[in-house]
Amino acid sequence: MMSFLAGRRIALYPKRYAVVAAVIGSFAIFHNVFASGGEESTMFAQTFFWIAVILIAAKLSSLVERFGQPSVLGELVIGVILGNLALLGIHSFEPLRQNEIIAFLAELGVVILLFQIGLESNINQMKKVGLKAFLVATVGVIVPFVLGTYVVGPWLLPGLTANAYLFLGATLTATSVGITARVFKDLGKLQTPEAQIVLGAAVIDDVMGLIILAVVSAIVTIGAVSLGTVSIIVAKAVLFLVGAIVIGQLIAPILGRSFSQIHTGVGMKFTLAICFGLLMAFLAHLIGLAPIVGAFAGGLVLDPVHFRYFKDPSIVRDVKVAVREADVHTREQVLKAIEPHAHRHIEDIIEPVAFFLVPIFFVMTGFGVKLETMFDLPILLTALGITAVAFVGKIVAGLVAGQVDKKIVGFGMVPRGEVGLIFAMIGKGLGVVNDEIFSIIVIMVILTTLLTPPILTYLIKKEKKAETREATA
Amino acid sequence: MMSFLAGRRIALYPKRYAVVAAVIGSFAIFHNVFASGGEESTMFAQTFFWIAVILIAAKLSSLVERFGQPSVLGELVIGVILGNLALLGIHSFEPLRQNEIIAFLAELGVVILLFQIGLESNINQMKKVGLKAFLVATVGVIVPFVLGTYVVGPWLLPGLTANAYLFLGATLTATSVGITARVFKDLGKLQTPEAQIVLGAAVIDDVMGLIILAVVSAIVTIGAVSLGTVSIIVAKAVLFLVGAIVIGQLIAPILGRSFSQIHTGVGMKFTLAICFGLLMAFLAHLIGLAPIVGAFAGGLVLDPVHFRYFKDPSIVRDVKVAVREADVHTREQVLKAIEPHAHRHIEDIIEPVAFFLVPIFFVMTGFGVKLETMFDLPILLTALGITAVAFVGKIVAGLVAGQVDKKIVGFGMVPRGEVGLIFAMIGKGLGVVNDEIFSIIVIMVILTTLLTPPILTYLIKKEKKAETREATA
Repeated sequence: MMSFLAGRRIALYPKRYAVVAAVIGSFAIFHNVFASGGEESTMFAQTFFWIAVILIAAKLSSLVERFGQPSVLGELVIGVILGNLALLGIHSFEPLRQNEIIAFLAELGVVILLFQIGLESNINQMKKVGLKAFLVATVGVIVPFVLGTYVVGPWLLPGLTANAYLFLGATLTATSVGITARVFKDLGKLQTPEAQIVLGAAVIDDVMGLIILAVVSAIVTIGAVSLGTVSIIVAKAVLFLVGAIVIGQLIAPILGRSFSQIHTGVGMKFTLAICFGLLMAFLAHLIGLAPIVGAFAGGLVLDPVHFRYFKDPSIVRDVKVAVREADVHTREQVLKAIEPHAHRHIEDIIEPVAFFLVPIFFVMTGFGVKLETMFDLPILLTALGITAVAFVGKIVAGLVAGQVDKKIVGFGMVPRGEVGLIFAMIGKGLGVVNDEIFSIIVIMVILTTLLTPPILTYLIKKEKKAETREATA
Repeated sequence: MMSFLAGRRIALYPKRYAVVAAVIGSFAIFHNVFASGGEESTMFAQTFFWIAVILIAAKLSSLVERFGQPSVLGELVIGVILGNLALLGIHSFEPLRQNEIIAFLAELGVVILLFQIGLESNINQMKKVGLKAFLVATVGVIVPFVLGTYVVGPWLLPGLTANAYLFLGATLTATSVGITARVFKDLGKLQTPEAQIVLGAAVIDDVMGLIILAVVSAIVTIGAVSLGTVSIIVAKAVLFLVGAIVIGQLIAPILGRSFSQIHTGVGMKFTLAICFGLLMAFLAHLIGLAPIVGAFAGGLVLDPVHFRYFKDPSIVRDVKVAVREADVHTREQVLKAIEPHAHRHIEDIIEPVAFFLVPIFFVMTGFGVKLETMFDLPILLTALGITAVAFVGKIVAGLVAGQVDKKIVGFGMVPRGEVGLIFAMIGKGLGVVNDEIFSIIVIMVILTTLLTPPILTYLIKKEKKAETREATA
């Protein structure tokens, strides 16, 4: 499909694509010098190159928007293509796999994304959907866990230990919110109740997944689990989220006021916000949650009002110059009206950092997809069965979401990602998860990740059309 | 001095500093958990923490602005403090030294800074000062090299080989433009002829330094150097700079037009610009120049006009809403005047990334300063002599700058940095530079780096005062 599209576009805009071809061609030339590496400075310079390659690839892939798809799908697909060129004998991109700095920037990218999404989410709106989100999360954890552990797991993969099924079930529990959040964001739907429920539920099911992992690990290693251990884990996680939101709301205004005394520039505003997000991500990691959960909570806590002490004179200065040059009579009136807009929104200041880092995460997520895992037919078929469980478990969860589009909520919860893979890795480390189950889990993660963006886009657009029809009827 | 200032401020604003103290206090708590590290995810999360610590420290240090100093000085000083707390038995910050990701982010930060400064510099203005910059660079390379190699080197450090003096002289040639550029930027003086001459000369002397290094290395390793080798190096470097600027000016508009066909959003504009800078930094590294030289050339080439295809509707929408709400009569007139300002300047979009990364470079530069190297009195005294040569060599260069403030140009060229240290490291690798010379070079780098910002600030402010006096007289 991609080559067909590319062909069509090349015919339409030959000159433009000649430039792109020249850029891509230059990869081949530079690629030769990479063997000379070794020193830190060489590695750093190569990483500059890779960042540029990833970002350009991501932007080229945003052509998918022409076909009504969210750009995140383009980033994932271009990542899958680059990551599997080795199958065609092109090994130019393989060094990316070992580049730890790119791996870090990707992780930082998803942390920034969730922080950004937290900033755009309203905490009161979130409280309103809190109960629904909790219900969705609970059902969305229990159904795939039970189906995976006790029904489909033993049926599709007979003869394994009970512990293996336990791990398989556990990997199906936690939603990877990054993909869904990007789809909602790309389509401008972050403020809908559906999006808010999915975001809330994804945070909650991450906590539940953490608890399940701890319990399952304890059962595997010591054969049983004490209620005390579980209570401590639950208490830590709940305390973190509630504490983050309550204490955060208390200290954010103090921090804002304090630091604005040192400097009221836009740089201080930016630094305060981003550091808050990073520290929350770090704290979440400390208690065993995914850093993105902390970053999201951090963004949720921060509110424009905490930044009211900071000014950004550049925009209003531009506007003032324009008004002065036009020599309008009501200048004073206009200036007065424009003054409140002198503040750049914190979201706008964070945005360029997201432009820089977020595509790295999605391209590298696609890059990590190993298409060859799908070449083993029995494994692929089993994986399709497990993927079906992954879908069904979350679609069922969507049914308890109340007066919203239940399908959007359900499919929004479908993507599994790093949390599932972490579970699989821990299970492998404990000797419970064998290579076969591991491949199956990887395929499940790939399919839920790649199929969700187009399905969700279709559902959201259908809902919009239905609304328009109702309005005109 | 710092503790005196801190004490004074604490007395003035007790509450605010209680918050800061709490933040710093929390470091101690988190510090304990660091021992548990090992895995990639833990390392990544710790790096989030370190980034936040560095950025907060950098912003706290901008208190130096109250004393008329550029914030870069604050960042350097706080870095020196954090990097030498081990002398007081506080080892909490030592893990930063091994963190390769932070080292990379610092390097990326200085690349972004020079790219930004290139963007803010005007290529025509730069051409106007081209000859002066070339003169300043030439004198500023020859004088310290000759003084170091043939006069002060043999005098202060008798009994070494001729090759050792050659290397010592070579380390004194290349200006580290980052520090000076930040001082000019912090004081809003980037557009002055002095700043333009310094920027141009720093790029040129980096190229000259590269040639000297190649020649000196050849002399050390094979005892002689052929004119052919030197010619090739010179040709490569000149070709890169001229080629980058000429070809860059040709292809930048094509790239701008091509990519704007895919998407006209602010994200595409940002990505194009930043990738251009990163690729230029990479290309510079490939031919043996410092990446910052490439980034600067990249910024110089890019011009707002290349981005005229991109739109950023958010600002003008805000302004329009304001004007509409105010219900002014000349609304059409005002809207027409405001329209051209709908585009966010590319500099504004890059700025947040600079907020994020640039302070990491300067704090880590300070962090790398080992104060204990200064505890050895004979070495310190010799280093002071070599530092004097470093100052004198560049101040003399400033004298050929023509009708500008010669002192500002001269002192602006003083800072030595990574290039000098790279030379020293190569010399060490070749067995020519011993530990003593290495320490001396490190101290010279430290002193030229730390002394320049306050001196330059003083000179620029004095010039400004003199101008004001002339204007009023």
